[in-house]
This record gives sequence, structure tokens and C-alpha cells, in this order.
Amino acid sequence: MQALWLEDQKLSYRTDVPTPQPGPDEALIRTRLAGICSTDLELLRGYYPYAGVLGHEFVGEVVEAAAAPHLVGERVVGEINASCGNCDHCRTGRPTHCGRRTVLGISGRDGVFAETFTLPVENLHPVPEGVEDHAAVFTEPLAAAVEILEQVHLRPTDRVLVVGAGRLGQLISQVLSLSGADLRVVVRHDRQRKLLTQRGIVTIPEKDLPVGSMDVVIDATGAPGGFKVAREALRPRGRLVLKSTYAGKLDFDASALVVDEITLVGSRCGPFPPALRLLEKSLVDPTLLIDDTFPLLEGLRAFEKAGQGGVFKVLLSV
Amino acid sequence: MQALWLEDQKLSYRTDVPTPQPGPDEALIRTRLAGICSTDLELLRGYYPYAGVLGHEFVGEVVEAAAAPHLVGERVVGEINASCGNCDHCRTGRPTHCGRRTVLGISGRDGVFAETFTLPVENLHPVPEGVEDHAAVFTEPLAAAVEILEQVHLRPTDRVLVVGAGRLGQLISQVLSLSGADLRVVVRHDRQRKLLTQRGIVTIPEKDLPVGSMDVVIDATGAPGGFKVAREALRPRGRLVLKSTYAGKLDFDASALVVDEITLVGSRCGPFPPALRLLEKSLVDPTLLIDDTFPLLEGLRAFEKAGQGGVFKVLLSV
Repeated sequence: MQALWLEDQKLSYRTDVPTPQPGPDEALIRTRLAGICSTDLELLRGYYPYAGVLGHEFVGEVVEAAAAPHLVGERVVGEINASCGNCDHCRTGRPTHCGRRTVLGISGRDGVFAETFTLPVENLHPVPEGVEDHAAVFTEPLAAAVEILEQVHLRPTDRVLVVGAGRLGQLISQVLSLSGADLRVVVRHDRQRKLLTQRGIVTIPEKDLPVGSMDVVIDATGAPGGFKVAREALRPRGRLVLKSTYAGKLDFDASALVVDEITLVGSRCGPFPPALRLLEKSLVDPTLLIDDTFPLLEGLRAFEKAGQGGVFKVLLSV
Repeated sequence: MQALWLEDQKLSYRTDVPTPQPGPDEALIRTRLAGICSTDLELLRGYYPYAGVLGHEFVGEVVEAAAAPHLVGERVVGEINASCGNCDHCRTGRPTHCGRRTVLGISGRDGVFAETFTLPVENLHPVPEGVEDHAAVFTEPLAAAVEILEQVHLRPTDRVLVVGAGRLGQLISQVLSLSGADLRVVVRHDRQRKLLTQRGIVTIPEKDLPVGSMDVVIDATGAPGGFKVAREALRPRGRLVLKSTYAGKLDFDASALVVDEITLVGSRCGPFPPALRLLEKSLVDPTLLIDDTFPLLEGLRAFEKAGQGGVFKVLLSV
């Protein structure tokens, strides 16, 4: 089958990748639409030594599912961590931290930039009828944005700052805006600003950064510079959510964190059902972020475009 | 001036009520539109021994404000608790619990069902331009709904039940729906159901009440029967938010609360700025609840209507 294959930090379009065989608890899924994410771009840069089919943001159709035949023919999205189900993490409600897990298109499991792929049936969520493919394909990053509200009690009276208005920052801003909190988003480019303003979200330019006054700050930049800005904006006893995978190490003044009694919260994958509920109610609109859609055959061009500055989201149709 | 006057549990329309004189830190406000609330109906039934002008939900125009002249001519809404500013509660961020406070149209301070009334200028919030009077008049009860999210960390993955889909229950349901949580609302009448369905909110009839499974339950019925239903729906270690002023005492099994490790949260007035932000972004639409608007002169008829079963909101225009 066709697929985009990553090996030694090089991506190639191949037509000779074997069609995967689902295990007894797995489904075989045909990709309908897939999204290129910052993590994909970082895997190309060597953030994590992965070889295989790339891609983890998808909406697809179930082709085979021995353990859940009712899912066959269903349009689904899926959680990307396939966990063992038996370890302490799995048994105590932290399956996304299972030490034996594989991660779709990221670690030990071929991804979705292909004609078909497999996932455990328990990872799948049928897409509500009213949610079109172009919105559903954002469920995974939207769930990652929702995770912030799962981890942090964000109060409607909190002053909240999002640093980084790129792909994930835009989704985070849309989700946090629903809380009624006093939300501001730091923007660098005019297009970032326009997309947010369109949703009634207050933006501030980088030169007007608040200092020492925010109750909650989200760093969605993925860059050490973003952490510094986020840290400076925070008030004493504030909460700083790290919503990025930094390539490389982060240097920061840990004693100052103690002195200012700052809470740091690392935040990664999130829950799919609330993300689908927000899409179903049209409370968020991720389709605003779509720049372009390429067929899988032109996957390398799609990646070139996704890596350009100012580009939000590039999709692959299969 | 004209006003609706409550005394000895009797409401009367009067034209001889003296125009109030604002104190040095107060504003004189002309009522534009006011709402009749369940608390008003309960004051009539003797829930609290109050005599004076009734009414606390309003949108008005500032006529005089010596301490804040920039507010004159502004369209405002206002927080109803006028606190002393000096006691322990006031100094530690709990002004709505000040022991020396007066409460607009409820305790020690004439209310808004009148041509004019007074409030401290610090209680006032200008209404954003895009928010029309018919929406702004709901700011106070909407803030009371928002207070739930201020007090309780409602997680997007929580199963949440609202018991009571009347005036306040509708606003609470609209606000909690924005959290992405798995929300269900118990409805009694078809109109309650329709208003919620219109906003994409899942309703359940009283006969299908969940038992022992909800993470968070809100009792917005104002009736002891509502508490019982809410309590039964809750899972062990669940959180029960009491969003009602019960006329009379509530009997419940306190040992069962201990055994099931239930958290009870009493919840009253809430923050205005987030409520205004939700209105400005059209994330909630309270105007759906308006049944009728009467001139102040027909205030007694308005109260008659507001007291009828199945009626959501009756407004008074001045």
C-alpha cells in the first residue's frame, strides 16, 4: 500500500509498505483524512528515534474489527496511545502513561499517513453525524487542548495567557475561551491575530507582554523562548502549563519557581469524548486553521508546506 | 417615583416612593430593564423578612456618580452585595459574605423595580456594546451559574447532572455545556426540554434518573425533592452543588454523606466579568427564556405571570 515512511530522519513516499494485519483486539482502519502536526515535523528533525509510517491525527473508516464488529463501516477517530491494560498505570486510570505502550506513528506502531493502519478497538470513538471529516481530523489535538481543563482548575475569574498562537495554541485558545476566563493570547503574526479575533478572543502583541500578573499561563510555543515569556508573565503562586514538546533541554531558574511558589504542569494527550462534544456543538471551529489538503501521493510536498512559517494546518487525504 | 414595594409579604405598586439619594461612593442608576427572579417570589412568600423596593436583576443607566463621573451615562449591570470593605471577609476576598452587607432588593437596600436606585460604584460593570438590554438583564443569574465553575473543578470528562431546568437551571445548563463535560439535564416539562435541545444539550426525563453514577450533580430545583434526586444520582466521592435557596429546612442522611464521602458545595452569587464575557461572545443565550415584558405600572400582573408554573422569565421595563 501507499504510505509516508520515516527512517533516519528522512521521509519518503512508498508504495511497497505491507498492509497491516490487525491483532485480535485491534481494528483495521482506512484513513480518510489525516493532519500533519508539529510532532511529525519534530520527528523528522530527530526529536525521537522513530522509524515507520508517520502520522497520528486522523479520521478514518473501520474496515475490520473482529472484537467489535458493530464498528465496521463506522467513521472513527482514535486515541493514539495503545497501552498494555495490565500495568499499574493502566490499572489506575493512566493508560496514556503505560510503560509498554505503543504510540500511533510515534513509537512502535505504524501511523496514519497510509492507506490503512491498526489501533485497538478500545481506542476508537465514532464520530457524531454532524461533525464533518475536516473538523473530526482535529479531534486529537483538540483533546490535547481540552486536557488543560482536565488538569488545571481554570476559574472563570482567572487571568489567563496563552503564549504561542500556532497550530496548537489556536485550538487551546478556542477551548479556554469557552471558560469565560479573562483570556489573552500572545500573537506574532497578523494571521494568528485575525483567526483569534474572529472568535472574539483578545490578542496582545509580543511587545505588550504582561509581567508578573497572570493567574494561569499556557506555553504552547514549543520553544525555550516561549517558556521564558510564559514564566515572566505569571504572578506568584500562578500555574504554568507546559503544552509543548521541546526539542532539546530547557534551562530555567528552579529556585525562582520555589520562591514564587509556581506550579508547573506538564500536559500532553487529552480525552476524546469532550473534544467530540465541543465539535458536535460547534463550540470550537478548527477548520479555520486548514491551509491546504494534499493527496497522500504528494505527501512530501505537504510536509514542505507544513514546515513553512505561518502555516497552521496541512491535511492529507487518502 | 414609581416602585414595587414589598411589606408584610404583600407587594404593591406605589408612586410615592422617595427618589433615593446616593451616598458619596454610590451611583444613582435609572432602571432600563429588570428581571423577576425566584428569590423575589420567595421573598413574597416570606423566605426572608424584607420590606422595601423589590428587585435585584437589572440593566440600567448611571444618572449620578460623584466618585466615578466617567460612569455617568453608561449602561451598567451591578453586583447586588454592598459590603463594608473593612471586615475580615471583605479584606480576604469574600465581600459577598460581609456580615454588614446590604443586598439590593433583598436586605437593607431598596431594589430595582423602581425608576431609580443606588449601588456603590465599585459594584457596577459597564455592559459591552454588543450585548443588548434583554441579554444584559440576565448578568446576575448568569454570574450565579458561572460561580459553579469558580467553586468546583469541573473536568471535561466528568459526568454531570443538572436537576431542575427552570430559570436558573437553564442558565446553569448553558454555562456547564461549554465545559465539554458529559452533561445531562433532568426535565419535567416539554418546554424545558425544547429550550435545552435547541442548545445541543442532552435532556433526560424524570423517570430515567441515573443512580449512583454522576461525578457532579447540581441541584437547581429549590425544593427538598430536588436534593433527594440529586443525592441519589451521585457516585461515591461525587460532588453535589446546592444552587438553590430552599424555603424551609432540608432533611438528609448526614451519615450516608460520610460513608459515601460526598462533597456538598453551597453556591450563591457569582462573578460578573466572566458572565459578561460569555454574553459578549454569544456563548450563552439567556434571551430564549423571556416569556413576557411588562411596564413597571403593571408590575403586579408581571408577578402573577412569573409565579405561574412553566414560566421562565418575566421582565419589567421602566
